[in-house]
Amino acid sequence: MITQMRTEIGEQPAALRATLEGLLPRAAEVAAVADGTRQVLFIARGTSDNAAVYGSYLLQVHAGRLATLASPSVATTYRSRVDLSGVLAVALSQSGRTQEIVETLAWAGQCGARTLAVTNSAASPLAEIAELALVTAAGAERAVPATKTFITQLAALAVLGVGLGADVDPSELKQVPDEIERMLGEPGDIEAAAAGLAGATGMVVSGRGFAYAAALELALKLKEACYLHAMGLSYADLLHGPIAVVDAETPAIIVASNAGPALDGAIKLARRVTGAGAMALAIGGGPDLARECSRALPGPRLPEWLAPIGLIVPGQLLTEALARQLGLNPDSPRGLSKVTQTA
Amino acid sequence: MITQMRTEIGEQPAALRATLEGLLPRAAEVAAVADGTRQVLFIARGTSDNAAVYGSYLLQVHAGRLATLASPSVATTYRSRVDLSGVLAVALSQSGRTQEIVETLAWAGQCGARTLAVTNSAASPLAEIAELALVTAAGAERAVPATKTFITQLAALAVLGVGLGADVDPSELKQVPDEIERMLGEPGDIEAAAAGLAGATGMVVSGRGFAYAAALELALKLKEACYLHAMGLSYADLLHGPIAVVDAETPAIIVASNAGPALDGAIKLARRVTGAGAMALAIGGGPDLARECSRALPGPRLPEWLAPIGLIVPGQLLTEALARQLGLNPDSPRGLSKVTQTA
Repeated sequence: MITQMRTEIGEQPAALRATLEGLLPRAAEVAAVADGTRQVLFIARGTSDNAAVYGSYLLQVHAGRLATLASPSVATTYRSRVDLSGVLAVALSQSGRTQEIVETLAWAGQCGARTLAVTNSAASPLAEIAELALVTAAGAERAVPATKTFITQLAALAVLGVGLGADVDPSELKQVPDEIERMLGEPGDIEAAAAGLAGATGMVVSGRGFAYAAALELALKLKEACYLHAMGLSYADLLHGPIAVVDAETPAIIVASNAGPALDGAIKLARRVTGAGAMALAIGGGPDLARECSRALPGPRLPEWLAPIGLIVPGQLLTEALARQLGLNPDSPRGLSKVTQTA
Repeated sequence: MITQMRTEIGEQPAALRATLEGLLPRAAEVAAVADGTRQVLFIARGTSDNAAVYGSYLLQVHAGRLATLASPSVATTYRSRVDLSGVLAVALSQSGRTQEIVETLAWAGQCGARTLAVTNSAASPLAEIAELALVTAAGAERAVPATKTFITQLAALAVLGVGLGADVDPSELKQVPDEIERMLGEPGDIEAAAAGLAGATGMVVSGRGFAYAAALELALKLKEACYLHAMGLSYADLLHGPIAVVDAETPAIIVASNAGPALDGAIKLARRVTGAGAMALAIGGGPDLARECSRALPGPRLPEWLAPIGLIVPGQLLTEALARQLGLNPDSPRGLSKVTQTA
């Protein structure tokens, strides 16, 4: 039996094509709503927060704008007033119904921010209160671990970057659905990679820069669907303390683009991990990273600014395979439902 | 034999007194360097990053300023140019010598930000390049897990808040050293609490709002000194996926102030954790949280804006006791040194 999660992973090329077709023509509307702003504040939780990390690197590295993540409890728990003039607030929620996110975007508007929503539901409260909504075309997602809704959020954020004048070639975006399709056809030995992780209770998932977003999202998938203590950490944060946990029983998964200024650090980290006697699994990073790791899964052939959209795909397949190998049903993890409300 | 870490935990009241004595008179200099800015961007890693989380809540909840965390790799790996006009960049580094942090503060200045450093070393490169340095008086810290340097960073950030016009009563700061001293004299049954965690390989440490900073720092201590897969998560992020990992083998530590708008969520989370069959340990939160948990350690009798300075103390004692019970030396964890350089 094919799981719902695996089916939805396979639907991603079509979901990306539909999302890009709908959103690329709207880059000018993004520019209009951002008029007069100088920076972006992302409002998100869970998977959407990991997508926001991608957005923050894209805007800071390629669009010259400060782009950081909000603490929603400042709005919802403390009901504080903060000066948000000059800020474009961008809220992300798959359902558009997570009350904390809706409330925080409304608060941002009251504090002087311009407001934009990224959601998979045009009829949602989040889309309704935002000045502009970028609605993804992921279709229905029934498996609890988000896959195609995450990847289409990344595509929407790439369009946000284009709208905000990022120094990238927008036509490269059109390669992405085909490249994801190719990756799904040639994924590497996913079952063997999953089997190599099946005995671990904890692991570290690390990435730097753009790839950090994919590392965080993979760590979340492994927690949700496999109940693993998977810690998503940037290289730098890992070296500031948590590196102590890496040992023969605690493998590390290292996520990296095939090229770019972050690759060198990934290679050095792999050496340090294997030097500590731990198993290192590479996702992406090309032959130079694969050589330093115990095992490797191939990453996307995409420029670094788009690589995270492809880098999560081997991680999704790995999570789904590992859940099955552990006798778990990845489609409905314990304790979770599809729309999360925060107390 | 008393460990160095335990000795340094005991030196915290004196370190706090000296730090506050040195820094409280400098609030006007903080106001001067922040003149013309509207928001704060923190630059930090590891323990200093957890201190920055406290600063971000303090400034957003009480000083009406947006205050978020930078991604240093934007500066150091991508060498990108970002518009930081109107930004006060605040870099935190115990040693003042972590090159990534020094480079990122220099970058922020070049991008138009005003610059301020919080460090324990007046003669450090970080103090030298900043327009204003708030130098903490933690004294020498030899144990690798930071304790008194963290707590004095929090005190420096409280002074930053006062300088930026936070609507708090600065005289309350003077209660803090005495209260930490009282807590060290009546810590609760730390050894029994540590024994209750000794069989776990992974755990969740959760907090919301101000207490979130203490939860993140406790999770880092447990990773560094006890090699545990301890995940520091806000309540909201925990409920967005990672709650799936909480079970009979995965205890949760819930950190909360004795009062304030975040306490109610802590109590609800404790019910959910114990309902999932997991052990819940309360740190702080008063009798209402203790009642919902399997075990409780008392927190500080301090207003919420200062509570994190006290809330980390039971966590430090717990970490030190657990390391000893596990046969580890908390003073020199594997893989770590006192000044961390990031590749």
